[in-house]
Amino acid sequence: MLKKGERIDQLYAEDIQIIQSANVFSFSIDAVLLANFARIPKHGKIIDLCAGNGAIGLFISRKTAAQIDQIELQPRLADMGARSIQLNHLEDQLTMHELDLKNTFTYFKADSTDLVVCNPPYFKELPTSKKNPNPHLAIARHEIHATLNDVVSVSAKLLKMNGRFAMVHRPDRFLEIVDCLRANRIAPKRIQFVYPKPGKEANTLLIEGIKDGKNEGLRFLPPLYTYDESGSYSAALQEMLYGD
Amino acid sequence: MLKKGERIDQLYAEDIQIIQSANVFSFSIDAVLLANFARIPKHGKIIDLCAGNGAIGLFISRKTAAQIDQIELQPRLADMGARSIQLNHLEDQLTMHELDLKNTFTYFKADSTDLVVCNPPYFKELPTSKKNPNPHLAIARHEIHATLNDVVSVSAKLLKMNGRFAMVHRPDRFLEIVDCLRANRIAPKRIQFVYPKPGKEANTLLIEGIKDGKNEGLRFLPPLYTYDESGSYSAALQEMLYGD
Repeated sequence: MLKKGERIDQLYAEDIQIIQSANVFSFSIDAVLLANFARIPKHGKIIDLCAGNGAIGLFISRKTAAQIDQIELQPRLADMGARSIQLNHLEDQLTMHELDLKNTFTYFKADSTDLVVCNPPYFKELPTSKKNPNPHLAIARHEIHATLNDVVSVSAKLLKMNGRFAMVHRPDRFLEIVDCLRANRIAPKRIQFVYPKPGKEANTLLIEGIKDGKNEGLRFLPPLYTYDESGSYSAALQEMLYGD
Repeated sequence: MLKKGERIDQLYAEDIQIIQSANVFSFSIDAVLLANFARIPKHGKIIDLCAGNGAIGLFISRKTAAQIDQIELQPRLADMGARSIQLNHLEDQLTMHELDLKNTFTYFKADSTDLVVCNPPYFKELPTSKKNPNPHLAIARHEIHATLNDVVSVSAKLLKMNGRFAMVHRPDRFLEIVDCLRANRIAPKRIQFVYPKPGKEANTLLIEGIKDGKNEGLRFLPPLYTYDESGSYSAALQEMLYGD
């Protein structure tokens, strides 16, 4: 089942095994944060965009009976994700699609989805950008094949009216993100900032919006800290990673 | 020095005495939060808009040699503020102006100010709004005489290029606030959320912007809590109120 350089990691809190590779892609804490932030519908359809090796879809699968479709551009990553679905015997619930975001609507219907989750590339693709020389990692981190607006506009079109969009991103792009959501008819509703530890500035943004929702009633959830003062995972992160 | 119903309170951390009245206006924790959040220039000109009884200007006066002008619409509040300036022997540094915001530029020059601080009315004035029957408190809390855009547009015009605007407001109006700042050429730069206690959603927003600043590099400061788990002021608030 494993290819060269791959290993199997475990998310104990959700009892999920996941195939990873340091040379290709490994999920980050951000995937765990998003899986815990998003409000997961009990039934219906969920799409995981920019799915990578499928971590987020796998992590939320235990909380819902919804069908989960995962879309990933890179064949090597989509292949790992597909094998992780088999590894966890989740073929009836999850499907990995190796697919360019731009071709989403050749396979999926507009106005069909209850929740879109997305951990997109964070960094703008600029002539001056320092990119990882590993192309797998560069594509996952930089907006080489999909910009923020690509991701959000596809998500908005996928969503039913009042469907939810949940994304993890960087706080320094916050204003661009809220502008982009609203330009695509997604009203920001719940925001949570994640701080690396007490006393530090936020380094991660979790944001949820509702398609065709009202532009009012925005809530800022209690802050999360990744690490505590001693450098250990905070109690909240430990629970997300290892369970109660 | 005191009129009927007035008392003298003390902000120990800044060694400031302030005349207050439960029937007219008393400063809130929000004024203390803003005075501590704003980055105060050492010299130059500072304006405190919607000054109330002058709390914020008084609280920041110990940190700067800048001239501080305070603008307050309500005669009863401006009068208390003027007497608090005398009480603290700060007449050389602070001046209270009883003035409608709309007439700001009959007394003040555009492009003249290094910092504007503002604790404006938080609540929209709607036909359905429940307002305090006390007109002093209703005007201080509801946008009866000054809307968010009135406050921000006057602030932007007062500020020099690269001058700073610092405001305390409500998180549920966050999107409207960032839109309004940007529409008035103020780029949001530093944001801090205040949570009533650990585990609760944010109830106060502190935001700083720079006139004609670049729309990038937005920072989210470490969160503040008003109270700790036991219901006492948090260590950060105790320091703001009582000093080290």
